[in-house]
Order: sequence, then structure tokens, then C-alpha cells
Amino acid sequence: MNERSAREELAIANRILVDQGVVDAFGHVSVRHPARADRFLLARNMAPASVTPDDILEFDLDGEAVAPGAPRPYLERFIHGEVLRARPEVMAVVHSHSPAVIPFSVAQGVSLRAVSHMGSFLGVQTPVFEIRDVAGDASDLLIRDRPLGAALARSLGDRPAVLMRGHGVTVVGATLREAVFRAVYTEFNARIQLEALGLGPVTFLTAGEAAASAATNASQVDRAWNVWKERVG
Amino acid sequence: MNERSAREELAIANRILVDQGVVDAFGHVSVRHPARADRFLLARNMAPASVTPDDILEFDLDGEAVAPGAPRPYLERFIHGEVLRARPEVMAVVHSHSPAVIPFSVAQGVSLRAVSHMGSFLGVQTPVFEIRDVAGDASDLLIRDRPLGAALARSLGDRPAVLMRGHGVTVVGATLREAVFRAVYTEFNARIQLEALGLGPVTFLTAGEAAASAATNASQVDRAWNVWKERVG
Amino acid sequence: MNERSAREELAIANRILVDQGVVDAFGHVSVRHPARADRFLLARNMAPASVTPDDILEFDLDGEAVAPGAPRPYLERFIHGEVLRARPEVMAVVHSHSPAVIPFSVAQGVSLRAVSHMGSFLGVQTPVFEIRDVAGDASDLLIRDRPLGAALARSLGDRPAVLMRGHGVTVVGATLREAVFRAVYTEFNARIQLEALGLGPVTFLTAGEAAASAATNASQVDRAWNVWKERVG
Amino acid sequence: MNERSAREELAIANRILVDQGVVDAFGHVSVRHPARADRFLLARNMAPASVTPDDILEFDLDGEAVAPGAPRPYLERFIHGEVLRARPEVMAVVHSHSPAVIPFSVAQGVSLRAVSHMGSFLGVQTPVFEIRDVAGDASDLLIRDRPLGAALARSLGDRPAVLMRGHGVTVVGATLREAVFRAVYTEFNARIQLEALGLGPVTFLTAGEAAASAATNASQVDRAWNVWKERVG
Repeated sequence: MNERSAREELAIANRILVDQGVVDAFGHVSVRHPARADRFLLARNMAPASVTPDDILEFDLDGEAVAPGAPRPYLERFIHGEVLRARPEVMAVVHSHSPAVIPFSVAQGVSLRAVSHMGSFLGVQTPVFEIRDVAGDASDLLIRDRPLGAALARSLGDRPAVLMRGHGVTVVGATLREAVFRAVYTEFNARIQLEALGLGPVTFLTAGEAAASAATNASQVDRAWNVWKERVG
Repeated sequence: MNERSAREELAIANRILVDQGVVDAFGHVSVRHPARADRFLLARNMAPASVTPDDILEFDLDGEAVAPGAPRPYLERFIHGEVLRARPEVMAVVHSHSPAVIPFSVAQGVSLRAVSHMGSFLGVQTPVFEIRDVAGDASDLLIRDRPLGAALARSLGDRPAVLMRGHGVTVVGATLREAVFRAVYTEFNARIQLEALGLGPVTFLTAGEAAASAATNASQVDRAWNVWKERVG
Repeated sequence: MNERSAREELAIANRILVDQGVVDAFGHVSVRHPARADRFLLARNMAPASVTPDDILEFDLDGEAVAPGAPRPYLERFIHGEVLRARPEVMAVVHSHSPAVIPFSVAQGVSLRAVSHMGSFLGVQTPVFEIRDVAGDASDLLIRDRPLGAALARSLGDRPAVLMRGHGVTVVGATLREAVFRAVYTEFNARIQLEALGLGPVTFLTAGEAAASAATNASQVDRAWNVWKERVG
Repeated sequence: MNERSAREELAIANRILVDQGVVDAFGHVSVRHPARADRFLLARNMAPASVTPDDILEFDLDGEAVAPGAPRPYLERFIHGEVLRARPEVMAVVHSHSPAVIPFSVAQGVSLRAVSHMGSFLGVQTPVFEIRDVAGDASDLLIRDRPLGAALARSLGDRPAVLMRGHGVTVVGATLREAVFRAVYTEFNARIQLEALGLGPVTFLTAGEAAASAATNASQVDRAWNVWKERVG
């Protein structure tokens, strides 16, 4: 994929995430530069619904825009830079305030985990990044610099997603389409887990089931992408 | 009904199930071949929203596509083949990840059952297929071969629906329209049961009420079909 | 209002109730005949979304269509006939399977009541019609004859709404617009009551607050009607 | 901003609040007159979805329409007048029946507060105005005169929002756009708090986190406004 195609696909990803209810006026999605592993593409500071290929900027992993005089970037671009730095196999990152997911970032004693095979990639536990441990108890909760991005990446570890307490979630993928797929089904799985926990004790996927199901689903990403893309026209 | 009409109606059923929120990018619906009881019609591997009559393949009950060189089929076509084999009076099968239904597939100590007369066909209990009992504790949860399909059909028994733990639901009908009707109202009934159980002890339909109401509703299927069809154009 | 205008307004009421999520493919709304208090207007047996003025039939209070050879009527037209007979001041009746309301028809020990001033007409308690008390424990839950309609009307008493266990709700109004207004805000109030009860003990409207608020809101019905009408074109 | 621009922006605010699910056929939003701090602009008595610049009236802080023979105003215009009188730095006021917020106005022992950084402006507690304390236990719950408006303003104090028991919420902002932003994210935060409390004990934002986050978000208001405006376009 060349850079132009990457920009076009990233613009589509923005619109899909809006249409699927993962992001609203806020949230952002990045993809590693197709030709340079130490760069990534991310829209300028704007609402995802309006992103076009021309709104997309190129950044280095420190979160610095490559082009001189680039428009104002997202404050939290360090999420993308530091996660992409820490996870060489990751090609795309979605950060959102996915509404059914946030309760799991703040409720004590419960962990978002795979309860539906569509959320199998979540496995048996999802880490929660408590920014208070790093930034103290009066931060604005945002990943506003490299050290915070690096701390978030450490909390993510080798997982597909990390919750951010009182804030949202960051989801990664081996491709842009996989990251979008996972972002949509993280919300789906969270809604089901919320409702199931209200009914009684829950049978979750085992680690083995989650791994097997995630491997199968990885081959289904394009089917979802194509129909979601068609919806956003 | 000839085969062409069956294909056209099946394409409409796919779009209705999307529009009514029963399926998303995944899920599938089949109908027994109108001229051959040992064959069924099912779309090729694709998102339900996009299915046209020309995307529909013919399968034998073993789940083998009849036409040589047919496009890639759904991995889980064995759901359809084995249920249609086990239930000669069933003419159509819907498999979905119906969102309000999945919590009942994983919550212990509660059974999806008729709480609203629109869900009366569910009767006083809905079986849950625990794939772990058949495929062990590291499967991908999918009905990926004939033996798993046969095990699911045994769990279904003579019921209208069977939940699939951590996965979804399979619903059958004496006609395609009835299967679609039941799929929509299984979701409806599940949502109401979820919310009612949060309020206090619940009065469910008795077996007698469920049977009488289901018999009455069977005559109302076309009214729902026609208005749902109109919505999807 | 002449009969033609009444039919036109009733067709709009059907579409509003669909658009506002009160009815789906089922449910119906009637209005007393503008010139004859012993007659009412009600669509033929069809989905509310498709009702036009020409689909509307005239019935006597026994539920018999006045015109010879009239198309098939709703099975439950006796709801309308018997409620209009028992309540001379009532001009319109909505029967629906309003989704947030049904849980209150089946949950024991909780009564739908005014928790929001928009639902103030509900007062401090809403009766529940338990058809089992009249039709035994193997009925199809439907109001399929005059005696059942009369029993429902007795349960309704002088109230604005009566829940029907495992089935839905019947709401009345002094005008068609008021009945529609009340049907929409019965659903609204039920959703809020459901969610509030999950948070803790609830402060409901007193009888005095409910009465005062309902009197005020009665003058606001046209504002809602006009904007809802605009939405359905 | 001149008065014409203020009217145009206020008409847009009305449509945004409908589209975002904050108001329905009821609710209203005002802005202080751009040239006269003792006047405010507010639509005549009508549904927010239909408001155009020409429907907007000018009021003094007593809630009297300035123009002789002005059309019928909202009964509750005293909310706007008295809050604007009590809070000189406030430029806009939204009053709504925001559905996820109302449960917090009636549930005892729980306070709406910042659980998501998007709702950080709510801080650690939101006051509830119990009209019963002022108007007795048989009022219609409405702010129908100046003393009630003044009592509501006292309950609001120096906060961004005040819940109104059994009724709704009033939200203020330093600009019209900020008031709209806060109204939308009050609903968002309430939904998340509702769901999180169902999962277990909740970690809320500290006062310091809420303050820091609210300060950051204040600079993001235009991004949301622009995309919301485009949607209602």
C-alpha cells in the first residue's frame, strides 16, 4: 500500500468509527506509515466525521509533525507514537471514548474480557491504565506527552486493548482494518458483558477459546470492513 | 415457490435481519430448497447487508456446495445442514449474534423464555448449546463441521431456538418468514426479559399461554414481513 | 372535525407512533367517530407504518365493522370498543407493545408511576390487567372478544393507562393527540423509572404533583404533535 | 457577535440539541443578548426542532418579552432570566429533560458527578433542586415564576448544572457553544455513571482531575460544535 492509499483508507476508518458509534466528535485513529516504520499517519486536530485524506498529517514516533508549519495536531498523538514504538508488529491504533467500555475503566473488581466470540481478541482480562499512578491525582487524564504515552504503552503490554480510567480505551491491530474491527467489537463485547453481569454469574471464554476464536476472526476482518465502508459511502 | 422466488425472498430476509438489528456484518439465514428437501439455499461468505439473489448458493445437507467451483461458503453452513436434516418440518434457519440474546447464553441460572406474547414461541425455556461439552475448552466456538452441527441440532431438539454459549443463537421456522419473525422477536423478548429481571421477580407466560399465543402469532407473520420488507426497499 | 379529517389525523397518528418507537409492526390506535359517539375509527388489520386514510374502517362499539364486506379487522378491536363504551369522555385509544413498558407488566412488586413530569398523567400507580384472572392460564393473552375487552376496561377504570401482563399497554386520551402524547411519554417515563430504580430508592411525584403537572402538560400536546407530525412527513 | 448572528447560532443550537438527544419536543436554550447583559434571546413557545432565527424573542431578566405583542413565550423562561441574573459570567442556559440524567434527579443517595473526562465539568457533585421545598408537594414541577427561577438559581450556585427533581436539568456555559457541549456530555456522563454503578464500586474523577480536565476540554468546544452543526446542516 502506498501512502496515498493509506491516507484514503484512514479517512474511511474515521468515518466507519463514527458510524459504528465508537467515536463521536472526539477520538482518533492512526496507521503506521506504509514505507517508514518510524512514522505514522494521523488526522490533524478535528472531528473524525470530517476527516479527508488531505487532513492527514505525518508524524514521527515522538509525536512531532514531519511537515514544517503543519496544522494543529491532536493533543494525545503520543498515544499513537509510543504504542507504535513499543509494539513493532502493530500497524494501527484507535483511541476512543467508546461508551459501553468506559464503565469497565472505572468499576472496581470487574475486568472487561471476552464474553462473546466476536470479542475473543480481548482474552481473559483487559488492563486498565490508571493515570493517577503516573500523573498524580490532579491531571486532566489526557496522554499529553511522551512519558504518559510510554506509560500507557507499558500498561497495554502485548495486549490488543488497554482501558484508560475515566477516559476511554486504546485498541491496536496488525492492520488498520483489524484495529477498527477490534474497536467496534470491544464496544459490542462490553455492552454484552454489562448486561450479562446483571443477570447472574457469567461463563466467559477460556484462554484457549479466546485464542482459537481470535485466530479465526482475524480472517473475517475484510468482510466487516467492506460492509461498514459501504454504509459510510 | 420456485427457486428464483426463494432466492429473492432470501435476499430480502438478509436485509430485513440487518435492518431489524438481528445480524450485523455477520450472521446468516438459509431456506430449504423449494423443490428438493435435501438441499438448502444460503448466501456465499459475505455480509448479510449486501446479499443479492445471485450471491445465493445451493448446498446439500452435508454442507457441500452443489455447483462445482462455487465461491467460498460460510464456515458455519453446517448449522443449516444439520438442523434441516434433523427437523424435516423446518424450512428456514437464522443464525445470529443477536445482541440482547447473547447475555442469556452466558449467564448462569437464568433461561431465556417467553415474557412477552411476541416471544411466546420460546415457551418456558430455551436450551443453551455448550460447545465446550463437545469440542473441549479451546475451540473457536464455531460450528465448523458436521458433528458440531449435529450436536447443535440435538441441543435444539424440537424447540424453535437454541442459544450458543458465548456466540449467539440459531432460530428455525416452518417458513422463511416465520424464522425471520422469530429471530426479530427473540431479540425483543430478550431485551424485555433482561430489563424485567432487573425490576423484581417476573411472571412469565405459562406453557399453555405460550402455546396459545404462538399459534395465534403464526398467522401474523406476513404483516410483519411486509412492513419490514418495505423498510428495506 | 369531520370524518375525513379524523381519518387523516388517525393515519398520521399511526405513523407518529411508529416513528416514536411506541408501536412496531403491531399495535393500533383508534378515535371515536366525530359525529357518532357509538362508533369508532380504526385501521384494517395491517402494520401501523402503512396506514392511510383509506385503510381506516368504521366500527360500532361491539367491534363490528359498519360497512358490509369490510376488510379483515384487528383481532383486538374489542380493546377500543369496550374502553370507549366504558369511558364516554375518552376520544382515543392506543394499544401497543411499548418496549420499556412491558417489564412493568410482568415484574412483581413494582408499579409504573409518574417519576418524570412528562409522565405525570400516570399518577401514583398504573393498574395491571392480569388476563389469567379472566381467561385462565392458557389464553393467548389477546383481547379477542367483548367480555375480555370489558374486563380490560374495568381494570383501566378511570385511569389514563392500563398495563397488560406479558403483552403491552392501553392508553387513552380526551383527544387523539392526547392519547398519542400519553403513549409516547408512558414509554419515556417507563425507561426512566427502570433506570432510576437501578440507582437506589426513588422519589416519585406525589399525587398532587402528578395532577398539577398533568393539567399543565395537557395544554402542551399540540406542540409535541406538530413536531412529531413534521418528522413523519 | 451581533444580534443577527446570535439568533442564527441559537437556532442551530436548538437543532443540535434535538439531534444529540438532549431535548425532544420540549426543552429550550437561551443566550444572553450580545449587546445588553440585561436581556436574553429565547425562542417563542415551540418545539426546538423547528426554531429559526425569526422565532427567537428578546426578553428582559424578569422574563418579560421586550417587543409588544410578542408571541406566546415558554412558561419556564424564568429559568433563563434568573440564572442569567445570578451568574453574570454565564452567557447561555440549556434546560432539558435529558433522559439519562433524570434518574439522577430522583434516585436517593447517589449524585451525578464526573466519571468520564468528557463530563469533567460536573466535578464531584451535582446539586438537585427539590421544588417541593419551595413550592410544596402539589406543584406542577415547573419554574413558572421569578421566585421559582431564583430558587433554582440558588440551588445551581456556582455550578455548571443543576438537576431538577422529577423534571430535568439546567446547564450553563460561558458561551452558547459551551452550554450545548456541557448539555450533550452531561447526558453522556450520566449514561456511563448509570452503567458503571451497576458493575460495582466506581472510581470517580477527583476534584483536581475534574478541574484540570474541564479546563482542557473548554478549548475543544468548537470541534464538537462544528461537527454537530454539520450533522443538522
